Amino acid sequence: MNLDREYTCADLCKILDAKCENSNDYIFTTISTLTNPISKSLGFVSCDETSQDISKFSGLIVPNNFTANTKTSVPLFKTDNVMHSLSNLLNISQETSGYFLSEDFFNVTLGSNVSIGKNCILYPGVFLNHNTIIGDNVIIHPNAVIGSDGFGLYKINDNWEKIPHIGSVIIENNVEIGSSTTIDRGLIDSTILKKNCKIDNLVHIAHNVVIGENTAIAACTGIAGSSLVGNNCTIGGGVGINGHIDICDDVHIHGMTTVTKSIKEKGQYASAMTADNVRNWRKNQVIFRNLKKK
Amino acid sequence: MNLDREYTCADLCKILDAKCENSNDYIFTTISTLTNPISKSLGFVSCDETSQDISKFSGLIVPNNFTANTKTSVPLFKTDNVMHSLSNLLNISQETSGYFLSEDFFNVTLGSNVSIGKNCILYPGVFLNHNTIIGDNVIIHPNAVIGSDGFGLYKINDNWEKIPHIGSVIIENNVEIGSSTTIDRGLIDSTILKKNCKIDNLVHIAHNVVIGENTAIAACTGIAGSSLVGNNCTIGGGVGINGHIDICDDVHIHGMTTVTKSIKEKGQYASAMTADNVRNWRKNQVIFRNLKKK
Amino acid sequence: MNLDREYTCADLCKILDAKCENSNDYIFTTISTLTNPISKSLGFVSCDETSQDISKFSGLIVPNNFTANTKTSVPLFKTDNVMHSLSNLLNISQETSGYFLSEDFFNVTLGSNVSIGKNCILYPGVFLNHNTIIGDNVIIHPNAVIGSDGFGLYKINDNWEKIPHIGSVIIENNVEIGSSTTIDRGLIDSTILKKNCKIDNLVHIAHNVVIGENTAIAACTGIAGSSLVGNNCTIGGGVGINGHIDICDDVHIHGMTTVTKSIKEKGQYASAMTADNVRNWRKNQVIFRNLKKK
Repeated sequence: MNLDREYTCADLCKILDAKCENSNDYIFTTISTLTNPISKSLGFVSCDETSQDISKFSGLIVPNNFTANTKTSVPLFKTDNVMHSLSNLLNISQETSGYFLSEDFFNVTLGSNVSIGKNCILYPGVFLNHNTIIGDNVIIHPNAVIGSDGFGLYKINDNWEKIPHIGSVIIENNVEIGSSTTIDRGLIDSTILKKNCKIDNLVHIAHNVVIGENTAIAACTGIAGSSLVGNNCTIGGGVGINGHIDICDDVHIHGMTTVTKSIKEKGQYASAMTADNVRNWRKNQVIFRNLKKK
Repeated sequence: MNLDREYTCADLCKILDAKCENSNDYIFTTISTLTNPISKSLGFVSCDETSQDISKFSGLIVPNNFTANTKTSVPLFKTDNVMHSLSNLLNISQETSGYFLSEDFFNVTLGSNVSIGKNCILYPGVFLNHNTIIGDNVIIHPNAVIGSDGFGLYKINDNWEKIPHIGSVIIENNVEIGSSTTIDRGLIDSTILKKNCKIDNLVHIAHNVVIGENTAIAACTGIAGSSLVGNNCTIGGGVGINGHIDICDDVHIHGMTTVTKSIKEKGQYASAMTADNVRNWRKNQVIFRNLKKK
Repeated sequence: MNLDREYTCADLCKILDAKCENSNDYIFTTISTLTNPISKSLGFVSCDETSQDISKFSGLIVPNNFTANTKTSVPLFKTDNVMHSLSNLLNISQETSGYFLSEDFFNVTLGSNVSIGKNCILYPGVFLNHNTIIGDNVIIHPNAVIGSDGFGLYKINDNWEKIPHIGSVIIENNVEIGSSTTIDRGLIDSTILKKNCKIDNLVHIAHNVVIGENTAIAACTGIAGSSLVGNNCTIGGGVGINGHIDICDDVHIHGMTTVTKSIKEKGQYASAMTADNVRNWRKNQVIFRNLKKK
């Protein structure tokens, strides 16, 4: 990938907030990855060691404690936080090279009485229902639906009836919501996404759910009605969380986990079986189903 | 949440179809929940007992057999069906207060030869392909896609080819379809959602599936091609149902269940393991995988 | 379903590339299925035998080795590939009868510098971000989102920060992408869908994933960042694949499987427990959780 302009080692030290080992006169014009290294480009390594080939790069952004697997004489830009340094460079590069997605898109539906803060980006196909409140610096990706009716049903004479939902959705500052994610409005109270929480694509957040500050939720996860997720949690992809569940702060849930009870202690949780070849899987299924007979 | 106007105990008895115990002269102007009680508001309790604090409320909608956990002198509106009573009140309140989502939205795509019944609400971003048939009182939430091609493939010389789908989708009366849900059209016969079935957000219903009357399906569930789901079933969130499966009436499937065989007896079914801490989960996985060796 | 015109046995032999046994003078005007047979219509059977009633049909498209369960005197159109023959007929029939979905739809969002090949169909609500590259004969169903930001986060002082994604998405020839599917763009390299791969509805493909040629992925599946899926794989519905996983060619993954490690040998893989009645399931859950104590 071409950078927006030529960068010297000194330029990079400044932008990356890095100290340069083996500094030289090379001029960087491209950036690439360990997976697809481009000859003479700038690369980056996130960990202190790597077994991958770094010989193609003319420079590398690395952690302070990085040790090269082979002796290298190219500039090493040593930094406290490789991803942050990389982010700084990419931000500059895309702003001036036209990659940045500005607000020049259209086709957003806003209900009445919607409040939107400063510096928000709403992509096409986004739907914000009546009374939705959006804080500052919020990004909502294409086709996300915010404030649709909760799936609130009750029965009369054994037939489903719909209960009207008059609560709304509150999205606090610095929240990001992925493509085609759906966040339902509350019955009477609001559904709330607290500040700096990050929601991936195709996530379902039901009525009256509250997601804590700085919590990240990966794609294809569903959280049923009235559940509360704490602060600083990470929830993997494909997870299912029952309704009326409380999850405390600092909980990390592996992908594809089923959560049916409240989690009261911080830590890591999981439940999904992992892939095996079909023959073993079939045998173990049968044995498992017969365990109860023993 | 503010109500649209002032309500006396007598007004509420009428709207809620309730008998009032401890009736008094209080005028209700707000409604709130046990989770976030507002001082002097009207509250509601769905069960016959509650351990939660009801002291803030100036009145409560409760079941006929409700017993307060502490002696209370506030009006108790006793009713056969709390959710129905609440629904009646919310319907009135939102109609006059502007919460009601009317048909003033735009941006729906209709193919040719689409038939739509009376009193339907189609939200923005909804796509109805050619020949789709929609009954009366149907609600389709934003970005739902109805009648897209089924995922019908076959192989020639080991390469996937697409088979055209000329069936359509039939949505009967009183069906509700959630945001970003996708319902594919049939190959030759139609995909059918029978009357009063209720589908949540991000659900996938494949070609030639038939969903029975009054069946409810929670979010993030996928039903593969040609499966038949009976009447009065409830299917939890994140469920996966294989293709060419028959599920009889009155079946209740827990969230995150995998259904690979037809279900011929009514009852409750489940399959997902539930969350454990990662250490236990890892140990049990290893033991499970080695069951076959014993 | 009515065909677009009258077809004789000779017409059908030509269109279906079939040899006709028991040819007669009957004129076919409708087609129907074994599930909902229409009297005197043309039917089709994909396997060499069937226990279903074929007596209503006035003709059948069948495999070369087909044997009827009861003696039948109606025309049998024998062909090497029933689905291909059927496909040919349906293609002709829908083109002339107006079922064909042409490019007369609208409401697609294109970023800058997007390249689109020949004979593509983009349905309403589709979003293609800046720099997306689309090959020839690509079909993208309604509300699919291509090229949205990857879910790339890192932490500074324990708070999530967003890393800009400047990679793009490359969709090769003959790819089909289902409704409301999301395909994120890469961080620096591109996310790639290789030729003839087929993606169903509500699938999530994260940043820097590469999907191999002629691979099919069923609905509701999620593939996390930087994973590589080989050629000629089939991935069932509701599958979850961790990030940074390699899956080799010719791998078949059952629906609802959780993949947490690379798969290096071709074959079939599975992991999900399958539905049991709740009583058994509860007992076995308890036993499973206690396996480690034995």
